[in-house]
Amino acid sequence: MKNRKLTLVGAGPGDPSLITLKAVEALKQADAILYDALVHPDLLNYAKEDALKIFVGKRAGEHSMKQEAINQLIVETALTHANVIRLKGGDPFIFGRGYEELEYVRRFGISTEVIPGVSSSTGLTALQQIPLTTRGINDGFWVITGSTSEEKLSEDLKIAAQTNATIVILMGYKKLAQIVTAYQQIGKGNIPIAVIQNGSFEDERIAIGTINTIEEDIIKNKLGTPAIIVVGEVVKLHPSLIKKVVEENISHQ
Amino acid sequence: MKNRKLTLVGAGPGDPSLITLKAVEALKQADAILYDALVHPDLLNYAKEDALKIFVGKRAGEHSMKQEAINQLIVETALTHANVIRLKGGDPFIFGRGYEELEYVRRFGISTEVIPGVSSSTGLTALQQIPLTTRGINDGFWVITGSTSEEKLSEDLKIAAQTNATIVILMGYKKLAQIVTAYQQIGKGNIPIAVIQNGSFEDERIAIGTINTIEEDIIKNKLGTPAIIVVGEVVKLHPSLIKKVVEENISHQ
Repeated sequence: MKNRKLTLVGAGPGDPSLITLKAVEALKQADAILYDALVHPDLLNYAKEDALKIFVGKRAGEHSMKQEAINQLIVETALTHANVIRLKGGDPFIFGRGYEELEYVRRFGISTEVIPGVSSSTGLTALQQIPLTTRGINDGFWVITGSTSEEKLSEDLKIAAQTNATIVILMGYKKLAQIVTAYQQIGKGNIPIAVIQNGSFEDERIAIGTINTIEEDIIKNKLGTPAIIVVGEVVKLHPSLIKKVVEENISHQ
Repeated sequence: MKNRKLTLVGAGPGDPSLITLKAVEALKQADAILYDALVHPDLLNYAKEDALKIFVGKRAGEHSMKQEAINQLIVETALTHANVIRLKGGDPFIFGRGYEELEYVRRFGISTEVIPGVSSSTGLTALQQIPLTTRGINDGFWVITGSTSEEKLSEDLKIAAQTNATIVILMGYKKLAQIVTAYQQIGKGNIPIAVIQNGSFEDERIAIGTINTIEEDIIKNKLGTPAIIVVGEVVKLHPSLIKKVVEENISHQ
C-alpha cells in the first residue's frame, strides 16, 4: 500500500481564481480527482488529460451520494490510482466532513496530505468588503454551521450571540427564522446582518439589514441558496452603508 | 481622483504557494506594493520590474512604523501610482487592521477592492491535519486575538472556552500563561491544545499537549514566535496522536 496518497484540497469559495497555487500544482499532478458540487468546473481543466474525474456532489435538497459511499469510492480510487485528490469547495476542514474522509482512508494505509483553501466564511465576506474583525468593535469571529448532525440550531449560537464576535453561519439559510428568534430572545434584534448568495460569482446578491428586518430584506432582494449569513456590528462597515451615511450627512447640511 | 485604486490583498499563511491565483494576477498588474513583515519575499517577484515596493512591516517587539504613518504612506502612494496593492500576511480582514487602512484611503476618493487570502488560523491547522470542525465533536470554530487594543486577554475567550467550538488564538503566544489560567478556572485543564510555530515553512514546529502540560511541552520542543494556538477536542485528531493511540492499542494486545 506504499506510494498511495490522498490529498484533500480546498478549491476556495467559488470563483476559480480564488484557489491557491499549491492546489493548482496538486491538480496538475493528480491521477484521479473526486470533486464536489460546489467546486467550479473550470478547475478540472488543470488536470492531466487522462486523469479520472469523479463527481461525488451533494446539493441541498437533492438526492445525493451517502457519506459512506463517498468514503468507499475514495479508497477504491486510491487503490487503483497512485495520486488521488479529493477536491472540496472552500477549505476542506471547515465543515464538509473532510476529516471523516481522511480518517477512513488512513485505515487502509493510504498516506494523507491537506492543502488549505480560502473558506467561504472568510473569503466571501472579504470580497464584499465586510471586515470580520475590526479594532474597537470586536476581538474575533465565530464560524458555525446552521446544520448540525442533530438537524437543529447549535446551542453554541446562543452563547456566541452574547459576545462581540462576528458570527458567520454556513449552511444556515433554511434556519434563518430560528436564527432571528435566537437573537431577538436576547434583545439583539437591532444587530446588523448580511446574507450573501452565490458569493464571488457574477450573479452574487446581498441583502443587508438588521435581525428584525432581514427576512423582509431577503424577499425584497430575491435571495436564495447557496448563501452565507454574517451577523455583527462589522456588517455596518459594508461600503453601501458607509456611502449612505455620508450621503445623508451631506443632504442634511 | 478617478482611476486611483487600492487593492487589499491576502498573501496567505507563509509558504508563497499558498497565495491565490487572483492575488498573483493583481501583483503582476500593480504599480506599487506596500508589504508587511509576514509576507514572503518571493511574492514580490511577481511584480513588474519598475513597480515600487515599500516595506511597512511591524514585527513583534521591534520598533515599527505607526499605523497612522502606514495609512498616510498608502494614500501618498495611491496619489502617485494608479494601481496600488497593500499586501498582508494571511487574510487582510482577519486582524491586521485591514479595514482601518481601507477606511482611511476611501476618504481621499480612492476606490478599494479586497482579495481574500488563506488565513493562518484555518490554513496552518489544515496543513497540520488538525480539522477545525468535525461532526459529533463541534459545531464551529472561533478565531480570537491574544492582543486586544487594551493589551489584555479578551473577555470573549472565557465565554468561548465554555462552548464546544475549536478556539484559534492569533498573536497570543505571550499570553499563553493567561490562556492556561482561563481554561483551568473553568475546569478545562485537560482539554487538548497545540501551538504551531513558523507554520507552512521548513522549520515549522509543533507542541501538542493539554492546557495543564502545554507550557512544559513548549519548553521541551523549544518553540517561539510567530506562533498560533489551537484549543479543542479536535487537536486529538492530529496524526501523531492518532498514531500513538494505534501503537498503544497494538502493544497492549
